[in-house]
Amino acid sequence: FASKEMAPHMAEWDEKEIFPVETMRKAAQLGFGGIYVKPDVGGSGLSRLDTSIIFEALSTGCTSTTAYMSIHNMCVWMIDTFGNEEQRRRFCPSLCSMEKFASYCLTEPGSGSDAASLLTSAQRKGDTYVLNGSKAFISGGGDTDIYVVMCRTGGPGPKGISCLVLEKGTPGLSFGKKEKKVGWNSQPTRAVIFEDCVVPVGNRLGTEGQGFSIAMKGLNGGRINIASCSLGAAHASVLLAQEHLTVRKQFGEPLANNQYLQFRLAEMATRLVAARLMVRNAARALQDGREDAAVLCSMAKLFATDECFAVCNQALQMHGGYGYLKDYAVQQFVRDIRVHQILEGTNEVMRMIVARNLLQG
Amino acid sequence: FASKEMAPHMAEWDEKEIFPVETMRKAAQLGFGGIYVKPDVGGSGLSRLDTSIIFEALSTGCTSTTAYMSIHNMCVWMIDTFGNEEQRRRFCPSLCSMEKFASYCLTEPGSGSDAASLLTSAQRKGDTYVLNGSKAFISGGGDTDIYVVMCRTGGPGPKGISCLVLEKGTPGLSFGKKEKKVGWNSQPTRAVIFEDCVVPVGNRLGTEGQGFSIAMKGLNGGRINIASCSLGAAHASVLLAQEHLTVRKQFGEPLANNQYLQFRLAEMATRLVAARLMVRNAARALQDGREDAAVLCSMAKLFATDECFAVCNQALQMHGGYGYLKDYAVQQFVRDIRVHQILEGTNEVMRMIVARNLLQG
Amino acid sequence: FASKEMAPHMAEWDEKEIFPVETMRKAAQLGFGGIYVKPDVGGSGLSRLDTSIIFEALSTGCTSTTAYMSIHNMCVWMIDTFGNEEQRRRFCPSLCSMEKFASYCLTEPGSGSDAASLLTSAQRKGDTYVLNGSKAFISGGGDTDIYVVMCRTGGPGPKGISCLVLEKGTPGLSFGKKEKKVGWNSQPTRAVIFEDCVVPVGNRLGTEGQGFSIAMKGLNGGRINIASCSLGAAHASVLLAQEHLTVRKQFGEPLANNQYLQFRLAEMATRLVAARLMVRNAARALQDGREDAAVLCSMAKLFATDECFAVCNQALQMHGGYGYLKDYAVQQFVRDIRVHQILEGTNEVMRMIVARNLLQG
Amino acid sequence: FASKEMAPHMAEWDEKEIFPVETMRKAAQLGFGGIYVKPDVGGSGLSRLDTSIIFEALSTGCTSTTAYMSIHNMCVWMIDTFGNEEQRRRFCPSLCSMEKFASYCLTEPGSGSDAASLLTSAQRKGDTYVLNGSKAFISGGGDTDIYVVMCRTGGPGPKGISCLVLEKGTPGLSFGKKEKKVGWNSQPTRAVIFEDCVVPVGNRLGTEGQGFSIAMKGLNGGRINIASCSLGAAHASVLLAQEHLTVRKQFGEPLANNQYLQFRLAEMATRLVAARLMVRNAARALQDGREDAAVLCSMAKLFATDECFAVCNQALQMHGGYGYLKDYAVQQFVRDIRVHQILEGTNEVMRMIVARNLLQG
Repeated sequence: FASKEMAPHMAEWDEKEIFPVETMRKAAQLGFGGIYVKPDVGGSGLSRLDTSIIFEALSTGCTSTTAYMSIHNMCVWMIDTFGNEEQRRRFCPSLCSMEKFASYCLTEPGSGSDAASLLTSAQRKGDTYVLNGSKAFISGGGDTDIYVVMCRTGGPGPKGISCLVLEKGTPGLSFGKKEKKVGWNSQPTRAVIFEDCVVPVGNRLGTEGQGFSIAMKGLNGGRINIASCSLGAAHASVLLAQEHLTVRKQFGEPLANNQYLQFRLAEMATRLVAARLMVRNAARALQDGREDAAVLCSMAKLFATDECFAVCNQALQMHGGYGYLKDYAVQQFVRDIRVHQILEGTNEVMRMIVARNLLQG
Repeated sequence: FASKEMAPHMAEWDEKEIFPVETMRKAAQLGFGGIYVKPDVGGSGLSRLDTSIIFEALSTGCTSTTAYMSIHNMCVWMIDTFGNEEQRRRFCPSLCSMEKFASYCLTEPGSGSDAASLLTSAQRKGDTYVLNGSKAFISGGGDTDIYVVMCRTGGPGPKGISCLVLEKGTPGLSFGKKEKKVGWNSQPTRAVIFEDCVVPVGNRLGTEGQGFSIAMKGLNGGRINIASCSLGAAHASVLLAQEHLTVRKQFGEPLANNQYLQFRLAEMATRLVAARLMVRNAARALQDGREDAAVLCSMAKLFATDECFAVCNQALQMHGGYGYLKDYAVQQFVRDIRVHQILEGTNEVMRMIVARNLLQG
Repeated sequence: FASKEMAPHMAEWDEKEIFPVETMRKAAQLGFGGIYVKPDVGGSGLSRLDTSIIFEALSTGCTSTTAYMSIHNMCVWMIDTFGNEEQRRRFCPSLCSMEKFASYCLTEPGSGSDAASLLTSAQRKGDTYVLNGSKAFISGGGDTDIYVVMCRTGGPGPKGISCLVLEKGTPGLSFGKKEKKVGWNSQPTRAVIFEDCVVPVGNRLGTEGQGFSIAMKGLNGGRINIASCSLGAAHASVLLAQEHLTVRKQFGEPLANNQYLQFRLAEMATRLVAARLMVRNAARALQDGREDAAVLCSMAKLFATDECFAVCNQALQMHGGYGYLKDYAVQQFVRDIRVHQILEGTNEVMRMIVARNLLQG
Repeated sequence: FASKEMAPHMAEWDEKEIFPVETMRKAAQLGFGGIYVKPDVGGSGLSRLDTSIIFEALSTGCTSTTAYMSIHNMCVWMIDTFGNEEQRRRFCPSLCSMEKFASYCLTEPGSGSDAASLLTSAQRKGDTYVLNGSKAFISGGGDTDIYVVMCRTGGPGPKGISCLVLEKGTPGLSFGKKEKKVGWNSQPTRAVIFEDCVVPVGNRLGTEGQGFSIAMKGLNGGRINIASCSLGAAHASVLLAQEHLTVRKQFGEPLANNQYLQFRLAEMATRLVAARLMVRNAARALQDGREDAAVLCSMAKLFATDECFAVCNQALQMHGGYGYLKDYAVQQFVRDIRVHQILEGTNEVMRMIVARNLLQG
C-alpha cells in the first residue's frame, strides 16, 4: 500500500500541501483507521507491536501522512478506551473508517511539553461545559471533524484537567492560519481557538480530572507511533542511499566502491536495527502493561527519532547535490522526521522522564 | 546591512523564490560585488580575511543570498586574476557593481566532485570555440549574465581543461527547469546547456589547459567563502536560540533556566568559535600564499560546514515546535546551510584531500 | 556470584595480574565452564540467549575474567560441535569443569583481522601434523592447557586452513613474554610459538580445510559473548555513576540535582538498553540458525562495544577526579572493555561485514 | 628535548611511577621551570602563547610529566605575580631552576570544582596562621617542596579565602597514600593534610581574602596549559597512527590504503588543528588581558581536552590490538590525557562558565 498508493504522491502532497483524505480512506479500508481499537466499533483490534509495524511500513510511503494517521489512531483509541459505550458507538465507527478525521488538542501556545499547566478552561454550566482558550500546533486542525481536547475543569495542576470531545461546526470553534512548516506538509497544522464553545457533558471522556491521566496514557502509544514513523523514513532512506551509491558513478566507479561510504552505510543500517528493536520492545511492554512501559516508550522515542533523523540526514549527504533537490525523496524524509524529535514531548522531555525514573526509582 | 536590508526579507525570498537583484546591487555599492578584486576594475581590493568576515556578516541576514554572492565574487576574482587586461576591463566593472551577475559552471550531471573528468567540450574553430555539453546545479543559472565555464579543449584528464567566459544571449545557450530545493531558494539553480555555442577565443581565461588549475584555485577561496556563510548562519542561530531560551517559559520558568540547555548552548558557542578560527586561519593562509593553504581551506570547509549545521540544527531543537515553523528564521538557516556540506566538493571530498596530504606529504 | 565472588577481587586481579583459576572453577561448578556445550560431556546445554545473559551478569563482577571465560567457552563449544565423539569425551569434561583451561589461537602477528591469510603451517607426516609458526595476542596463552589452533594444512586462502587441538607440554610449544596491557589484566596474554610441534591427526577438529569455517562460526558466538561482556561493564558503570551522583555533593547539593548530568545519565541508560536489545536479538538469531545471524552478530558487536565503551567512559567522567583513581571500579571497566572494540574482528571489520552484506545482498 | 630526553623514558616513568626529577631539572635549564615568570627571579619571561607552544611540544615526549611541569609553572607564576618582592626573591629562583618543586593545593575531598566552598582553615595567631584541613588530588604531593595553599582566613564564600605558601618539613604537614591512577603516573598524587601547621603571615600571597581571585586567575592559565598538553598528546598520537597505518599490512596491503581509515585520520588532523587554534587564541587573549579571556580559556579547555582525547582514542583504535599493549605509546597518551577532561575544573564546569557568560552577558 505504501509503495503503490502513497510513495508516488508524497512529493506532490508535500509541495501542494494536500491532506490526502481519499488515500487515507483507502488505508482505512485495510483497517488502518483504528488499528488498536476494538473490533466491535470498527477497529482492527491489533496489538501495539502490530501497530508499530504497520506505521513503519506506511511511513516508507509518506511519513507526514502516516504521522497524522498515527495521531488519528491515538484519538480513536482514547475514545475507545476511556469513553463509555454510547461514546464509543457514536464516535468510533466513522473514525475507524476515516469517514471522519480526528485531531488531538493538548499543546497550548504557552505550554509546550508542560501539559499539566494548560490554561484552556471548561466551565461547567448545567449539563454542558463552556470551553475557552486556544491550542497550538494541532495536526489536522481546521480540516478534521472531531477534536479531542484537554482542558481545565478544576484547579491548577494535572488533577484539574478533563478530556472533552468537540465536533467541528460547534459555534465558537475557530482556527488560526495554516502554518508554513519545514515538513509535515501533507497534514495541515493550525491553532484551534475556543470562544464560549458549548460542549455537552456527555462528550467528556472518563471522569472529571481524569484528563491528564488519559493524555499521559495516550502519549505512551503516541511516542511509539511517532517513533515507528521515524523507522519507516529511515528505512526508506537507507534503501534510497543504497541504490544511489550503487547507481551513481564518481571518479570512474560506483560510489558504492568507496569504503568510507560503505562503512557509513553499515553504521546507518546498524543504528536503524537498534532503533527498531527499541521501538518494538517498548510496544511489547506497553501491550503487556509492564510497569516500565512509560520509560521504555520514552527511551524508544528519544533513541529512534534521534538516530533515524541522523540516518536520513546521512542518506541525504550520500546523494550529494541530488539530495538537496525536491525531485529526490530523501530530503522529504529528512524534513518530515525532523519534527519527531520535537513533538509528543521533545526529546529533552524524554531525557527528563528517563532520568527521573533512574534517580527516583 | 545584513540586519536592515536582508534579514527582514529572507523568509519572503525563500518562500517566493526571489533572486533579490536590487538588494544585491545595494550591497555592491558597499563594495561587496568584488570584494577581493583589484580596485582598478571596480573591486574592493580587500583580503581573504576581510572577505570571510564580510560574508559571515551578510550571511546572518540571508545565507542563501550571501552564498550566491560569494560565488559571484569568485567568478569576478577568476576573471580579475587569470584574465588579461582587456578581459578584466570588459567584464569586471559591471560585475563588481552587480549590474551584471555571474555563474560558475564546473559541475556536470555525471561528475560531481570529480571535476577532472568533465565532458563539456570546446572545439577550436579558427578564433572561436564551439561549446557542447551541459552543467548541473548552476547557481544563478538562467538569471545571470556571465557564465564562467570549465570545458575540455584537449585530451582527457585535468590538463585538457580550459576556462571560457560566456555571455547570456549566446545562441545555443539554454537552461534546464528551475530546481526545487530544500533551501537556497533565493538563488535559482538550473542546468546550463550548451549546443554549438560559439565563444570567441578572446573569452578564454588563461592559456589552453589552464582551466583545471584555475578551478582548483578558485575552489580554495570558494571553500572559505561558503564556510564563512555557514559561520553567519550559525552565529545568527545561536543568537536566536539564546533569545528564545530567555523569553520562552516552560514549567513556570524561562527555558534558559534549564542546565541541560545552558550547557548545550555553551557547546554550540564553543563549536562556533572553533569553526570561525578554522575559517579565519585558512583565509590568512590563502592570502599569504602558504603552501598548506589548500589543505587548510579543505579542513576549514569540512569542519565549519559540519559543525555549523549541527549548531543550527540544535538551535532549531531549542525552539521546540516553533523551530519547525517558517515564521521562525532558525529553520531557514538549517535548510540553507545543509547544502554547504555538499557543494564546493562534498565534505567526503574534503576528507580525501586532507587524507591525501597527510599520507603522501 | 558476580557480586560476591568476583567484584570484591577485580581490582586486585587487575593490579597484580592474577589469573583467578580458583574463582573460575567455582563458576564452573555453576555450569559456566561450558554454558552452551551439550550436557553429555559436562556442558550446561543452554541457549545463546542464556549465555549472553550469564556473561553480562558475570561481567559486572569482573569484565576481564568473564571475557576470558567467554573465550574458553567458545573453545569448548568448538570441540563439542566440530569434534568427533572421541574428541568430545576426551577434551570437554575437564574443560567444562575448568579443571583445564583453553585458549583460542587464530590471530597472527602479521594478520589481525585477516584470518584467511594466516601462515602457521601444519605439515602432514603420517598420522601426525608438524606445526610451525606463531600466534599473537593469545588470551590465557602460557597459563592454559588446551590450545585450539587454526593453521594451514593446504594452499593459500580460507580453504587451506584446518583446526588442531594442542595440549600444553607438547615439545616445541613455547610462549612469548607476558604482555603489559591497558586492561584485561586478569587474563595473561602471550604470543604462542610452534616449533616442529607434533600433533596427532586425531586432534584435528572436522575435516582438513574446514578450519576457516569453524573459526567463522566460532566468531559469531564470540562476538555476542564479548558484546555481552561489554553490556555487563556498562550496566555496572551506570549503577556506579548513579550512586556517585546521588551521594557526592557539589555546590551544596548532590551532583544528581544537575539536570545536565541527569540527562546524560538518561542517555547512557537508553544506549545501554539499545545495546542489550541488539545483543539479545543477535543471540536469538544465532540460536535459531537464521540466515542473517552473522550480520546481526556483527552489528551487535559493533554497536554494543562502541556504545558501552562510551557509557563507561561517561560514567568515569561523572565520577570527576575519583573516576581516575584505581580505588574506584569505573576506570577498570573503561580499561577492560576498551579492547572489545578491537578484538574478535575490529569494529572496522564489523562495518566491512555489514556493508558487504548490504551492498552484495 | 621532548623526543630525546622524555619520549624514550615515558613508558618506564609510567610503569615504575617515577617522578623524573633530573629530567625536569634539565628542562629547567632550558627555561621551562618558569616560562612565563619574570626574568629577574630566574623566569624566562615568555608569553602565554609561547608557553602553550612549549607545553605542546614537551607533551609529545611525556604528557604526564609535562602536565606536572605546567602546574609547577602556574605556582611559580602565582608567587611571581601576587607575591611581594621578598617572596619573589625567596621562592622563585629555586623553583625556576627546579631545584625545588611546587604543588598547587586547591581541591578538597568535599569540593571538587566548587572551589569557593573550601573548608581548610587558617586561623590568624599573631604573625602566623595555623592551618588545618586537607587537600585532595595534589599533583606532586609528598614529593615536592613548596605548597601553594588556598585556605579560609575569613567567612564563607569566595571572599574569605587567602593564599599561603607552605614549605615541606613544616610540622603538622603530612600526606596521604600515593594514589593509584589510570595515567599521570610520572607524577605522584597524594592528599595533603594540615594539622596545626604554623605558617608565617609573610608567606601569604596578596592580601587576606584575595585567594580566590588568585586561584581563578591561575586557573585561566592552568586551563590553557593543560589544554596545550592535550594538544601534544594528540599530535603525537596522530603521528603514531599515521606511521602505523603506513607500515602495518592487512589483507595484503598497508592499512593506509583503507579509505575509511584515511578519512578518519583526516578528521583527527582537522580536529587537532581546530583544538590548537582554540588554545592559541585563548592564550593570546589571556596575554592581552582581554575581557573575554576567561571564557575563551574555558572554551579552549573544553574543546581541546575533549577533542584531543577523542583523537588519541581513535589513534589507539587504528593500532588494533597493538594499541592495547603498553609497548606502544599511543595507549599512554590516551590514559594520560583522560584526566584533562576532569581537572582544572571539569569540562562540565567549563560548560557552566561558558553558559553563564552567554546568558548573563
